Amino acid sequence: MNAPGTPATSQPQAAEDGLLALIDTSDLVTPALGPHSIYTLSRADLEHVAALSAKHNVAIHMHLSETASEVSNCIDANKLRPVHYLDALGLVNERSVFAHSIFLDDSELAVISERGATLVTCPASNMKLASGGPFRYADARRHGCSVGIGTDGASSNNSLDLFQDIKLLSLLQKHSDGDPSVLPAREALLVASGSLAPQLGATPLAVGEPADFLLVDNASVELTPAPLAEALIYSATGSCVDTAVVAGRVLMRGRVIDGSEEVLARAREAAETVRITN
Amino acid sequence: MNAPGTPATSQPQAAEDGLLALIDTSDLVTPALGPHSIYTLSRADLEHVAALSAKHNVAIHMHLSETASEVSNCIDANKLRPVHYLDALGLVNERSVFAHSIFLDDSELAVISERGATLVTCPASNMKLASGGPFRYADARRHGCSVGIGTDGASSNNSLDLFQDIKLLSLLQKHSDGDPSVLPAREALLVASGSLAPQLGATPLAVGEPADFLLVDNASVELTPAPLAEALIYSATGSCVDTAVVAGRVLMRGRVIDGSEEVLARAREAAETVRITN
Repeated sequence: MNAPGTPATSQPQAAEDGLLALIDTSDLVTPALGPHSIYTLSRADLEHVAALSAKHNVAIHMHLSETASEVSNCIDANKLRPVHYLDALGLVNERSVFAHSIFLDDSELAVISERGATLVTCPASNMKLASGGPFRYADARRHGCSVGIGTDGASSNNSLDLFQDIKLLSLLQKHSDGDPSVLPAREALLVASGSLAPQLGATPLAVGEPADFLLVDNASVELTPAPLAEALIYSATGSCVDTAVVAGRVLMRGRVIDGSEEVLARAREAAETVRITN
Repeated sequence: MNAPGTPATSQPQAAEDGLLALIDTSDLVTPALGPHSIYTLSRADLEHVAALSAKHNVAIHMHLSETASEVSNCIDANKLRPVHYLDALGLVNERSVFAHSIFLDDSELAVISERGATLVTCPASNMKLASGGPFRYADARRHGCSVGIGTDGASSNNSLDLFQDIKLLSLLQKHSDGDPSVLPAREALLVASGSLAPQLGATPLAVGEPADFLLVDNASVELTPAPLAEALIYSATGSCVDTAVVAGRVLMRGRVIDGSEEVLARAREAAETVRITN
């Protein structure tokens, strides 16, 4: 905690020091800057983040155009829509990952595509919070934008089951566009795996390299007997995953995660302290 | 198969004979008439179904106003919207269960409520087929309509997991109404259990009576540590169900269903014959 009168520049310096401490810590950790949004950071703070990201070549994760008022407030304050405002500050580039991004117009989708930035749609969260519109998936892809999917946090989802959320995205896009051919199963699988966004990139499995992958139980009811892509998108849930491997290390096998009982017990204890139990 | 020239009345008679053969067969079987929709049955056929339902006091299950063209075609042909057309034929009453029911106007919701008919929304199916609009849940309840939820068939869902579908309904209603307070978890549980529709009625458990119920595993990740109603609606899937009991008979225990391997094997065989495997 800073003593009264400590210059405000100490916080940005602390952020940069923290970032440097994380870089190269581990192959499994890729630090990124997380300026929350245009409405919680000043122009000067956003410019500082842009400079830091360029200097250290680290990604930026940011909420963008989640609500209509965020857009209208930005236009009122800056005479620019959010993507154009961020672009003027140097924050729209191939290192940028923008969550939500519901209220983008065509000119903003064009900038996102030209700069190589990534849009991450969060359908469950946007629907639960009644954010006011669907993500413009078909338009974003037509403009050539990179697209991924996120669950958002537990407070607005509540599940963090990507299988449920990719079905939801596929259904919401068909519903919103009035076209059942939008975002079919095989394309939805590419979104879910990060294959439609180089920044999120689905890394190919390579012989002899430590790999990340899931094994699904194709004897499960959910995956019987439909073709695999359709079953994974429209029927499966996280419960179909039998084994999870990260960097060659088995984290779950036969649906058993070592130490999960302790994690659940601690979650229950923590819930008692904030009174979110029944 | 009828010989040429056999009177058309033989089919309705066969339907009535089949209905009578099913009534009182078992406490577990409640036969109902299933006239598909207003666009696949003639006025005479629909009147016949109405008479048969009244005569034998059996329910009617019917698709209703699933697409906008179904409504406009009905108005063109009958000068009435679908609910008013069916009401004139005696098909809207406390025995009627209407699936989909997306495109009902206020005058139709009023008739549904007055007659005590039941609306069953099928959100996954309607979204996947891009049927063109959300079910008017809040309006239907404001009119006092009975409301339940259905998965629709596997060809337009594909999962038949009611846990996923009730979350989808709750999210879609919030999204459509632009109001995150619509259809909260405790109310969604009432919809899912049939408690908001006497026709679908959630029968109370009675001491000494053979009961229908599910046991969920509240040690599962999905149900830890949120309050139960919220966890069941927003996090749970069918995989959280440990035990299923119908009429006092245990059908599944510890997630094991006797004979399920054979059912899955036969499903795989059947899939080969219609070439829906990978």
